[in-house]
Amino acid sequence: MASTLKVSRRNFLVTSGAGAAALCVTGNAGGYTGEEMRARAAKGTLTGVSKWELDTPALCVDLDRLSRNIETMRTKLREMKVSSRPHAKTHKCPAIAKLQLAGGSIGICTAKLSEAEVFAANGIQPILMTTSNVSPAKIRRAMELRKTNRQFIQAVDYPQNARDLNDAARAAGVIADVVIDVAIGTRSGVPPGDQALALGQLVDTLPNLKLRGIISYDGGAQHIKGFKTRLDQTLNRFAPSLETYDRFKRAGLSTEIFSGGGTGTYNILPKAQGVTDVQVGSYIFMDCQYIEIGGESNDAEYTDFEPSLTVVTTVLNTYFPKSITTDAGAKALTLNKPGPWVIGEKDFNYNAGSDEFGVIRYETAQRSYKVGDKLELIVPHCDPAVNEYDQMYAIRNDRVEAVWPVSARGHSQ
Amino acid sequence: MASTLKVSRRNFLVTSGAGAAALCVTGNAGGYTGEEMRARAAKGTLTGVSKWELDTPALCVDLDRLSRNIETMRTKLREMKVSSRPHAKTHKCPAIAKLQLAGGSIGICTAKLSEAEVFAANGIQPILMTTSNVSPAKIRRAMELRKTNRQFIQAVDYPQNARDLNDAARAAGVIADVVIDVAIGTRSGVPPGDQALALGQLVDTLPNLKLRGIISYDGGAQHIKGFKTRLDQTLNRFAPSLETYDRFKRAGLSTEIFSGGGTGTYNILPKAQGVTDVQVGSYIFMDCQYIEIGGESNDAEYTDFEPSLTVVTTVLNTYFPKSITTDAGAKALTLNKPGPWVIGEKDFNYNAGSDEFGVIRYETAQRSYKVGDKLELIVPHCDPAVNEYDQMYAIRNDRVEAVWPVSARGHSQ
Repeated sequence: MASTLKVSRRNFLVTSGAGAAALCVTGNAGGYTGEEMRARAAKGTLTGVSKWELDTPALCVDLDRLSRNIETMRTKLREMKVSSRPHAKTHKCPAIAKLQLAGGSIGICTAKLSEAEVFAANGIQPILMTTSNVSPAKIRRAMELRKTNRQFIQAVDYPQNARDLNDAARAAGVIADVVIDVAIGTRSGVPPGDQALALGQLVDTLPNLKLRGIISYDGGAQHIKGFKTRLDQTLNRFAPSLETYDRFKRAGLSTEIFSGGGTGTYNILPKAQGVTDVQVGSYIFMDCQYIEIGGESNDAEYTDFEPSLTVVTTVLNTYFPKSITTDAGAKALTLNKPGPWVIGEKDFNYNAGSDEFGVIRYETAQRSYKVGDKLELIVPHCDPAVNEYDQMYAIRNDRVEAVWPVSARGHSQ
Repeated sequence: MASTLKVSRRNFLVTSGAGAAALCVTGNAGGYTGEEMRARAAKGTLTGVSKWELDTPALCVDLDRLSRNIETMRTKLREMKVSSRPHAKTHKCPAIAKLQLAGGSIGICTAKLSEAEVFAANGIQPILMTTSNVSPAKIRRAMELRKTNRQFIQAVDYPQNARDLNDAARAAGVIADVVIDVAIGTRSGVPPGDQALALGQLVDTLPNLKLRGIISYDGGAQHIKGFKTRLDQTLNRFAPSLETYDRFKRAGLSTEIFSGGGTGTYNILPKAQGVTDVQVGSYIFMDCQYIEIGGESNDAEYTDFEPSLTVVTTVLNTYFPKSITTDAGAKALTLNKPGPWVIGEKDFNYNAGSDEFGVIRYETAQRSYKVGDKLELIVPHCDPAVNEYDQMYAIRNDRVEAVWPVSARGHSQ
């Protein structure tokens, strides 16, 4: 397994667009802080700042790659006659949500109510919250959000929760749109079959709720390695949800929304009859974990989408043989595996296990490095890495074009 | 190994103060958000809010335990005739730094310049930055900080960096205090011995730098399991630093500061002649990783300090046998191992591997749980967990006494 991964990474870093990026840049200028960059953005004086001039660690997103990922998703889903409803828990960034909506997405998803509130406050209307709100305060807040946002849809997975939502909707004077969250696996949602059907029927009778359909997300399917294996397992695991969907239809319940899938299954789930949209998140950025799963056309590397998200880091120490220390550790990259990968270096083993430092071990390097050099990294797992930063730098041709607040960062409530 | 850990955790959760905390509370009231709590704090109307009424996930610190940890550290170090210079990368919280200074600490450490700037802006004067600043912009900023804070001390580990600091200090019109960072292992610092001595001598000749001594931190020693093993290995690994210290003394270089150690070695490093202070961080909060290393008086559990930091989470799903889903996943707890531990439950296996959800598997539970119940967790590793939150709630007798901004959160630059 380990050697396969290594080959995959090696191929990827050499053959893909990632390998074409700068390997190392000595940062003798700039060093602009987040505060300085926000001030420049506010004054319209960003022009000319290179990503290599940013204070590090710096979270960067390449705008051309981001745009191509949006366009690729639109094109591929159109062929399969489904839509995208991207999960904003990945980027937590209203500017990106707006690009996704402009690029054909029918709405966004959020995992947490506090995220939904941030996106709504930033002018995003069509929001589907994929987690149930179970506390009275969260239910009340969700209805407050619904009062000002007619396109807010909530998930429900328990009968009592449906009744609580109905009561709160009545108290707020709204008819609240809900979807039934049908479980795949044992993490969240109502079990498929009888219990899900009964919940749908209950919601259908509650006067202040409007049933809109079903969501059924399979967190365990997204990273299954090898496309054929992923295809088979995804559709097998989705079968009970599909049967539940059929029972909803036969019972005359709304199935206007039948949403699921993610970046790993965006081109698999639409093969299931009735699916309306996929809740893709990571496609916008990609990361080491997704690159490793392989795609339909390339079983070694998942190249359907391009890695657009990187962290720029600075070399702090090169005293020790076959070792480089950087300023990007677990607080800048998270502990997810594999990676991070150093763009342009095939044999670097980057360990972000230290909170404040990254430690690279290697046998061979493409060049020699010295203190102050900059390296660019593909992150292990995009979602939690983004959550470590207050802003991301929107880059085109290595220049900063915008400073985007990660407005929902830290909103895990 | 695994079974030993399980026994350790079991003992700890039953026998320690942690086991006495509430197991589960049904949250039918409150649900106060961070924003609401900050507003209440500003208006002086916090009185009476229970930690169980907080919107979750919520980061809490128990004030009585925190105070006892500070007092324990002061007492134990006084016996060994060294001081504490706590590492603020752990808490990133000026309110806690002030309590540490009031409790006898001679200063704080920071890992990053952006952290040092935050603490200085919040009125903390004695700051030792333990990482070198290598970029011109960071060096310039460090000297700006030095201009307004005469107690700011910087680490240096390369001759060129020393010359750069000297130039910047001259440009800023200051004499900057520096310490030589002497490496233990291969992560950061100048190698001990000749290179370290030469660097100390260079600094001593540079007119705008003032040599204050040596720092030498052993990140790899802190979590060695078993006190005797940790003691032996720590002192062995520290021997080259100690020899370097002796050479500094013989060369007439300043050794006014000889700082190292952490929470795992606070009572070990002072056995080395000349050590002035320990850079303890986690003692203030404790976490699962530290509890597992064992202490001098209790080899199974490290009970020198009390776990004061917890995350309160809400149960979202109990449909599935032997399984509970909560609202605290990797974005609320990080992926560090082991844990998190559920206070009051000996056999819960909490997996925070999902970004948004925690999934607990268990064979036996002390009670039955339902949706909406609250659980309280000891975090796997305190430093990066704190870095996921904008505020922590300061708790006494289960009531919120203050809302403390985690002011340096996200300052990984």
